[in-house]
Amino acid sequence: MSDYTVLSTQELQQVHMDLLEKFNKLKDENLALDMSRGKPSPDQLDLSNGMLDIISADTPLKAEDGTDVRNYGGLDGLPEAKAFFSNILNVSSNEIIIGGNSSLNLMHDTVARAMLFGVNDGETAWAKLPKVKFLCPSPGYDRHFSICELFNIEMIRVDMLEDGPNMDQIEKLVQEDESIKGIWCVPKYSNPDGITYSDEVVDRFASMKTKAKDFRIFWDDAYTVHHLTDKPDELKNILTACKQAGNEDRVLIFSSTSKITFAGGGIGVLASSENNIQYFKKLLAMQTIGPDKLNQIRHIRFFKNVENLSTHMKKHASIIKPKFDMVLNKLESEIGGKNIGSWVEPNGGYFISFNTLDGCAKTVVSMAKEAGVKLTGAGATFPYGHDPRDRNIRIAPTFPSLIELERAMDVFCLCVQLASVEKLLKEQL
Amino acid sequence: MSDYTVLSTQELQQVHMDLLEKFNKLKDENLALDMSRGKPSPDQLDLSNGMLDIISADTPLKAEDGTDVRNYGGLDGLPEAKAFFSNILNVSSNEIIIGGNSSLNLMHDTVARAMLFGVNDGETAWAKLPKVKFLCPSPGYDRHFSICELFNIEMIRVDMLEDGPNMDQIEKLVQEDESIKGIWCVPKYSNPDGITYSDEVVDRFASMKTKAKDFRIFWDDAYTVHHLTDKPDELKNILTACKQAGNEDRVLIFSSTSKITFAGGGIGVLASSENNIQYFKKLLAMQTIGPDKLNQIRHIRFFKNVENLSTHMKKHASIIKPKFDMVLNKLESEIGGKNIGSWVEPNGGYFISFNTLDGCAKTVVSMAKEAGVKLTGAGATFPYGHDPRDRNIRIAPTFPSLIELERAMDVFCLCVQLASVEKLLKEQL
Repeated sequence: MSDYTVLSTQELQQVHMDLLEKFNKLKDENLALDMSRGKPSPDQLDLSNGMLDIISADTPLKAEDGTDVRNYGGLDGLPEAKAFFSNILNVSSNEIIIGGNSSLNLMHDTVARAMLFGVNDGETAWAKLPKVKFLCPSPGYDRHFSICELFNIEMIRVDMLEDGPNMDQIEKLVQEDESIKGIWCVPKYSNPDGITYSDEVVDRFASMKTKAKDFRIFWDDAYTVHHLTDKPDELKNILTACKQAGNEDRVLIFSSTSKITFAGGGIGVLASSENNIQYFKKLLAMQTIGPDKLNQIRHIRFFKNVENLSTHMKKHASIIKPKFDMVLNKLESEIGGKNIGSWVEPNGGYFISFNTLDGCAKTVVSMAKEAGVKLTGAGATFPYGHDPRDRNIRIAPTFPSLIELERAMDVFCLCVQLASVEKLLKEQL
Repeated sequence: MSDYTVLSTQELQQVHMDLLEKFNKLKDENLALDMSRGKPSPDQLDLSNGMLDIISADTPLKAEDGTDVRNYGGLDGLPEAKAFFSNILNVSSNEIIIGGNSSLNLMHDTVARAMLFGVNDGETAWAKLPKVKFLCPSPGYDRHFSICELFNIEMIRVDMLEDGPNMDQIEKLVQEDESIKGIWCVPKYSNPDGITYSDEVVDRFASMKTKAKDFRIFWDDAYTVHHLTDKPDELKNILTACKQAGNEDRVLIFSSTSKITFAGGGIGVLASSENNIQYFKKLLAMQTIGPDKLNQIRHIRFFKNVENLSTHMKKHASIIKPKFDMVLNKLESEIGGKNIGSWVEPNGGYFISFNTLDGCAKTVVSMAKEAGVKLTGAGATFPYGHDPRDRNIRIAPTFPSLIELERAMDVFCLCVQLASVEKLLKEQL
């Protein structure tokens, strides 16, 4: 592997010609591959097909407390569903609301409620303030940023470091600016970096001084049990840390089974202080008579306990780990040593985050598109779709088959090389 | 049957003594009966148990368009789900959004969106206006009124007449007051009166002049296929009428399968003009990746077509019609001819609306409670829980068994008689 950045113009021109020839050949193949979204593959979904048979016309359809799961009622979820998720998230059953089929919905609605009614009794509705700002550790999750755009919340970019967001930046900002009301975090196997926040980061989040007393951490624990190795990352419990720091209402934890059972047919969950949960329930009672209890019962009877859930997640890992390995091996063999890109090997989650040379991400994505490979849009991992260094690309390896993925990664690596050489050549002119 | 209102004081005192004796005996029975909410009974829910077996691990899990119903996607519902509901509601597939498990949720979120973003592009967010008012035909559905209270929308009471709300009142109000932005309607087998709006009422709604150009009719068509007789009421299609009158964006139609299949495990739906639907979808895309498609497929494969749905609804009717008859017979035999109450015999829906003598409803409800029978709170059918004549009580006959219902109606009728006699005696003193 030769370092592209030390090649002469002539050498680069030669490399460029070779790459271009390969690229044109690839285009002729008329590929149609998709690495754009973090979707489970069909064989992952098959793992939960048994859940479809778990209740039937002949099954008892009562919950543990006698509730007929086919009828109205149960605003915040069945007791056994709350118990199950409280075990997963290490919070108490009183600190949980079971939602519908999506944690995104819970996050959106939580922001909507804050806009309309404030984050708790006696707090100002954010919509009444001249300006509301959120901190956005970036690269991050595009759908978080979309929620901010929808509600006209100004997004302030914060850098991601190796153990989480840059806490020096964050502490300074929240201490100075009362209009900063929230922050989006994916604290475990982060989207897209695959980073898990360190204990120190969690503690600093829990104890930092915020000028806004209605500041809230939107803690999207989407990948909490989504390990890729036998030595999974561990995330410190932020609700406990917040309580210890005297800021127990500060954090709102979101999670779901979307990538455990069925994406779009799973269960979303919100965990927070009892105080927050009581407040949300009061407002929620005007919105719904309660989430689908049949689907709760399906989940609970399918898994029974957290041990079975762990076993189930190992099956997921055995399907997707080879895909992650494929991506990492391709990156290593095609990009490694060339000094034209960097990436992190995650211990879990759904993504591999790739950084090109500055200014190359958009080119790579559009080249790949030309060759029939769809990637997450360059910039999508940043607020307002603007990656200031135009370098981050989120690779989503789970959905394609291993064979498709190999082909797609060939295209990707070729595009990275081509875009890099073109950039380097331009710089030398 | 003697008319209580023509009895002498002495006669009334005698009747009072007899009733009181019966009442005290009833209290000793320690009954615990509930006629408070419009819930299906367990045997009604049993009718849909087959839906639980309709998909299993071995069933093809693709929708008609090839969508894997276990994975992400499908913001506004599967094509076959939209087609099914468009047949029920007589609108086109482009005029439909399939929601989650509850139409209440859709109604709440529609109001929330209007508050935050306005009812369409270019319209003012209602939350930015000094005052927003809704018209509330009353008696009506308490959960509609709760949504208004939540969003601090001022409610203006409008009388219900025999063929729908008082349109003279409504036309005058909406023409004069720009802050009146909406109205709640249950147009078919209305809650609680069981009235179906006449064609004239529908046409007047569609064509009336409103001072607010962002005025919206919240048309909660909850009981559209919930007939109790072989000669069901017919409701004129308001979306068509609105189009003909040049007001196609005016109406928002809500419905659900909550009282068709499973309450809380059904499917909610919103129908409106294509223009409105496009706007909602744009906002919805930030809130969710889409509703549970597995439950859509369950419903579609269970019913297949609207004819089977009709057959299914006849089975519901055969279970609940005897309960409605029981209530009506008891009212006739115990209250009829005494000039102390009035009621309407509905052709469908979930309720019988009973009017006591003025000023007696609260007393009846609290007496019944004392005797172990829970009724919907008096006043609940009016905005702010305030029934100006304190006379309306909503009877919900579906959930209790026929035997329980008979006992509960004995208590109810006794309480009505007792409260009436006490009122009449007080007036004579």
